[in-house]
Amino acid sequence: MDVATLFEQMPFAQHVGIEMREATDGRAAGYIELEDEHASAPGNGVAHGGVAYTLADTVGGAAVISRARKPTPTIDMRIDYLAPGDGDRLEATAELVRYGSSVAVVDVTVTDGEETQIAEARGVYKTGGGDGANAWQDADSQLPGE
Amino acid sequence: MDVATLFEQMPFAQHVGIEMREATDGRAAGYIELEDEHASAPGNGVAHGGVAYTLADTVGGAAVISRARKPTPTIDMRIDYLAPGDGDRLEATAELVRYGSSVAVVDVTVTDGEETQIAEARGVYKTGGGDGANAWQDADSQLPGE
Amino acid sequence: MDVATLFEQMPFAQHVGIEMREATDGRAAGYIELEDEHASAPGNGVAHGGVAYTLADTVGGAAVISRARKPTPTIDMRIDYLAPGDGDRLEATAELVRYGSSVAVVDVTVTDGEETQIAEARGVYKTGGGDGANAWQDADSQLPGE
Amino acid sequence: MDVATLFEQMPFAQHVGIEMREATDGRAAGYIELEDEHASAPGNGVAHGGVAYTLADTVGGAAVISRARKPTPTIDMRIDYLAPGDGDRLEATAELVRYGSSVAVVDVTVTDGEETQIAEARGVYKTGGGDGANAWQDADSQLPGE
Repeated sequence: MDVATLFEQMPFAQHVGIEMREATDGRAAGYIELEDEHASAPGNGVAHGGVAYTLADTVGGAAVISRARKPTPTIDMRIDYLAPGDGDRLEATAELVRYGSSVAVVDVTVTDGEETQIAEARGVYKTGGGDGANAWQDADSQLPGE
Repeated sequence: MDVATLFEQMPFAQHVGIEMREATDGRAAGYIELEDEHASAPGNGVAHGGVAYTLADTVGGAAVISRARKPTPTIDMRIDYLAPGDGDRLEATAELVRYGSSVAVVDVTVTDGEETQIAEARGVYKTGGGDGANAWQDADSQLPGE
Repeated sequence: MDVATLFEQMPFAQHVGIEMREATDGRAAGYIELEDEHASAPGNGVAHGGVAYTLADTVGGAAVISRARKPTPTIDMRIDYLAPGDGDRLEATAELVRYGSSVAVVDVTVTDGEETQIAEARGVYKTGGGDGANAWQDADSQLPGE
Repeated sequence: MDVATLFEQMPFAQHVGIEMREATDGRAAGYIELEDEHASAPGNGVAHGGVAYTLADTVGGAAVISRARKPTPTIDMRIDYLAPGDGDRLEATAELVRYGSSVAVVDVTVTDGEETQIAEARGVYKTGGGDGANAWQDADSQLPGE
């Protein structure tokens, strides 16, 4: 199964309506057709901030996994909103800006599919450490004093 | 209508299953009962990062609006993931750390409803400028050269 | 006095050795010649993270002020480090990605002056509210309960 | 040599005037006595944003190294400014919120040494991968296509 298909089968990505275009060689792209359920207020036609974020995190993760070929949990992500998402869709493209043995850094741009930039996000994903379905469950969880 | 009810009626908050507990005096709290649709992979029982983010952004916004009493769009938010969200629910509490005439800063903590901290988020929300259903549509959009 | 000169006269910018190239129409550029005093360990020849940040915050602020023509305090900034700053200099270019009546968003790229990207930063600066030498001193400081 | 002493001997920390109080068991504290050289404009008595950031990054790094016992480069840091640093000093305390085999997450609070909170920062530091004076120089630097 290719990475794009894998991401479309994520239950929450399906629930939010994410369609993946591609995820290869450290780049990925996907989109959401905006429906009433994505709105931030009844009938206002503006997507909730969580829609653009979920798209950015998903497409960003796909870019990393296309390179890492194993689960790469998000460590942190920052999103800056630049314009309201009030068009017919949100489109996102993600690109690796650094790929390391411990972490990868990804830039994601979200547009309305036309000329308007809706948001920019930058995320750090874990590339080292644990394997398996949940990469957090390695020798990773101890805090000072534990 | 009180602020907590207003936020529960957001279409995307409903779609994701957010329940608000309170939103008063610059503090807010809410939660999501985790279901299969929130998972990051089929049957893995771990919430997608967009679930915790959408909860954090929503509860954070409710904390600001409980003080501002008008729409306060998110300018930016950063989320740091600290543990997998693999329990029965995600709970979030938000608190204003700065409230100004232009922007407000909010800290949000997301837990599993028991002892495990799942994520921490910090967001900046717009408190000044435009009014109405979409506060971005003020004299705000010009970029250099436009 | 032009904006670039104004920023070179900032005491801390002088202390860190920032030289401004330009600051006009929402764009700015500057650099630091790296010396022993910028190192993160004695003799290691790698600039401390605070050097790249101080350059990014300063050049970013200059980009905003070149448009705003009044003090624009930094609200928040995130910096991602991509490679060690172990060359002869750090160079930064800043560009406005959004300019609004309340806040502006700026992207800053820091390189070694040649081909290596050292860091990327994104900052939010205040463009609305108070005037005067310290724009924080407006009606901005009240917190819930005050 | 203890970690606090090690950090005081960082050339850039000395240049900026950082004094370390402690760095043990995943916690660290330090301060800067504010002088004219730290100002953001001649004679305004307000510290440049780079001063609080450099203190936060340094004290945050000390908290991580007190646990890791090897170099731990900063991967990213976000700082939110809450009030102008216009007092006699800046004080910072850092605490680990997550310590893993790949990365650690640290929260830093910066105050004026009295009751006013000046800034909050959150940083991610690398704990896995390369050793030696510069932990970036491991198998870490390849980008897609290289």
